[in-house]
Amino acid sequence: MAPVTNGRALFAAVPIGYPVVDQTIVYDNTQTIDLANAPLNGGFLVKVLVLSVDPYMRGRMREPDIPSYMPPFALGKPLASGGIGVVLRSELAGVEVGSHIRGIVPHQEYFIAPNLEGLELIERDARLPWSVYVGAAGMPGETAYMAWKEYSKAKKGEIVFVTTGAGPVGSLVIQIAKQDGLKVIASAGSDDKVAFMEGIGADVAFNYKTTDVRAVLKKEGPIDIYWDNVGGDTLDAAMEHANMFARFIECGQISGYNDNPQPMKNPLLIVAKCLTFNGFLVGFLRPKHKEAFRAEVVPKIADGSFHYTEDIVRGIDKVGHALLGVLKGTNTGKAVVVVADE
Amino acid sequence: MAPVTNGRALFAAVPIGYPVVDQTIVYDNTQTIDLANAPLNGGFLVKVLVLSVDPYMRGRMREPDIPSYMPPFALGKPLASGGIGVVLRSELAGVEVGSHIRGIVPHQEYFIAPNLEGLELIERDARLPWSVYVGAAGMPGETAYMAWKEYSKAKKGEIVFVTTGAGPVGSLVIQIAKQDGLKVIASAGSDDKVAFMEGIGADVAFNYKTTDVRAVLKKEGPIDIYWDNVGGDTLDAAMEHANMFARFIECGQISGYNDNPQPMKNPLLIVAKCLTFNGFLVGFLRPKHKEAFRAEVVPKIADGSFHYTEDIVRGIDKVGHALLGVLKGTNTGKAVVVVADE
Repeated sequence: MAPVTNGRALFAAVPIGYPVVDQTIVYDNTQTIDLANAPLNGGFLVKVLVLSVDPYMRGRMREPDIPSYMPPFALGKPLASGGIGVVLRSELAGVEVGSHIRGIVPHQEYFIAPNLEGLELIERDARLPWSVYVGAAGMPGETAYMAWKEYSKAKKGEIVFVTTGAGPVGSLVIQIAKQDGLKVIASAGSDDKVAFMEGIGADVAFNYKTTDVRAVLKKEGPIDIYWDNVGGDTLDAAMEHANMFARFIECGQISGYNDNPQPMKNPLLIVAKCLTFNGFLVGFLRPKHKEAFRAEVVPKIADGSFHYTEDIVRGIDKVGHALLGVLKGTNTGKAVVVVADE
Repeated sequence: MAPVTNGRALFAAVPIGYPVVDQTIVYDNTQTIDLANAPLNGGFLVKVLVLSVDPYMRGRMREPDIPSYMPPFALGKPLASGGIGVVLRSELAGVEVGSHIRGIVPHQEYFIAPNLEGLELIERDARLPWSVYVGAAGMPGETAYMAWKEYSKAKKGEIVFVTTGAGPVGSLVIQIAKQDGLKVIASAGSDDKVAFMEGIGADVAFNYKTTDVRAVLKKEGPIDIYWDNVGGDTLDAAMEHANMFARFIECGQISGYNDNPQPMKNPLLIVAKCLTFNGFLVGFLRPKHKEAFRAEVVPKIADGSFHYTEDIVRGIDKVGHALLGVLKGTNTGKAVVVVADE
């Protein structure tokens, strides 16, 4: 069998502000791979099926000397993110041809893994496509469920404000909060997203681009829990309209991701209102909550009790566009690049 | 017995910035009280012995329509703060003449309490003066001990950075942290205070007015726990030099108390470093930790294991000066106004 193209999405330059397609993220089709004969050296060959596209990836697109919680992407090399692939050939005991792996995978159509480090074998519920396993049934879903369990201290009748409520994390937070008996206020950046949030049970859903967040919180709050995906002025507004003892779950602050750090206007409110802030990375919560997530959440996604939306593009050449959409909020639902069918 | 002067420290006007002695806080000696005959209406007559002077009092010197966690002081009325008095006459069962009460008391030499609401009967360890019962053995000491127990999650060998480490709260935090086996970095605003902090065990003590906090934290950190009494740029520096999973105990942010709110420069670090912030007011921790404080801490103060310093002025006419000193940091040790001897 002749070698085939091994298309890749490369980190080509450190962006200033938003990434630029074809400049900072470049699709490359110059490499080939001989699928039948490429040496495995004891590892296994994976065909990538789906790739997750997430806001945190912007943080890895930085100069290599800036420290942060995840290593920077290497210039000239493929990006990497959560993904799923199927094993085409294997020399590793326990990894069968035809089995599936999930983990942080390079953005290329095929790769050879030396071992299972950073990867796990995974089986699919027949009712769900693989894409869901990097979304509601994957890292974003885990993020919502695990941090809610760990930090929300939710009590029935309390009020939660969820930002980016139409995204893969926020939409599951809304549904778990409703299940726990809370009143849910949710925001997103388009009227379509508002309709989706209402559809999954948000009591109050609004478009932050056309509605004043402080007016909503003044009328519908004060809030007991704030799920932060955005930071910036929305975080300030949430603090101003927080109840005593409110919990702030700091999942992300997308307003500051593109080289525009947003200050917190009045941190003295943390003292005055006895607020708790919990920053977290889902990887540290996973060992404790992984089994409960599989047992409680994935079946509810599969049977339709929990809703999700996906924004799927096909082809690894679309990674740059997909990431830009996520960072600008122009996508709707979990952004997934389907690289190949099985 | 003829009526005697009942001197008072009045809240006379809302300050802009720092309070102004004789303008925003005014000593008044126009009232008298007949100690033998003033009607008690079932309550009891108290002679005030000591008054605590604390930074948080500035927050109560505000326009009455601004909400906050403590009610504003009433214009034209006496200030109020933690204090101790002796009972001169009583019509209330259970409150004997000669017994002592502690609680939030008005800043006047004598007052009649209708009941024990907001006050408690208190006994003194013969080795300690009453002033200590509004300091190391009172609210500031409780603040240090209770929040440390509740939020620090301290582990032996970790590193804590304590601000205002020569004050009544910070100095006890330093000593409890050393007792728990931590490395202690501590800051204050004079060389005398630095010497005091070294004397009570701080491993690294520095004068923030003459030493760059970032240089110290870079060399001696990263920190696992930050005890915040100051906010502002010092809080930013602590976040920059925090370890992953660091705990920020938000006791106060004095840099923002005098109408100059200080922003937090980069709240995204809360996410990136998985930081926890806990704001608190000691009153909410007291029920849980009160008995342990009495049993563990007060005896160590009395036998000299825990050190404290006091900055005592005599006379209720000095309240304004004392509060200004506390807010500007020109005092050394716990500020107490001794109003009268027994």
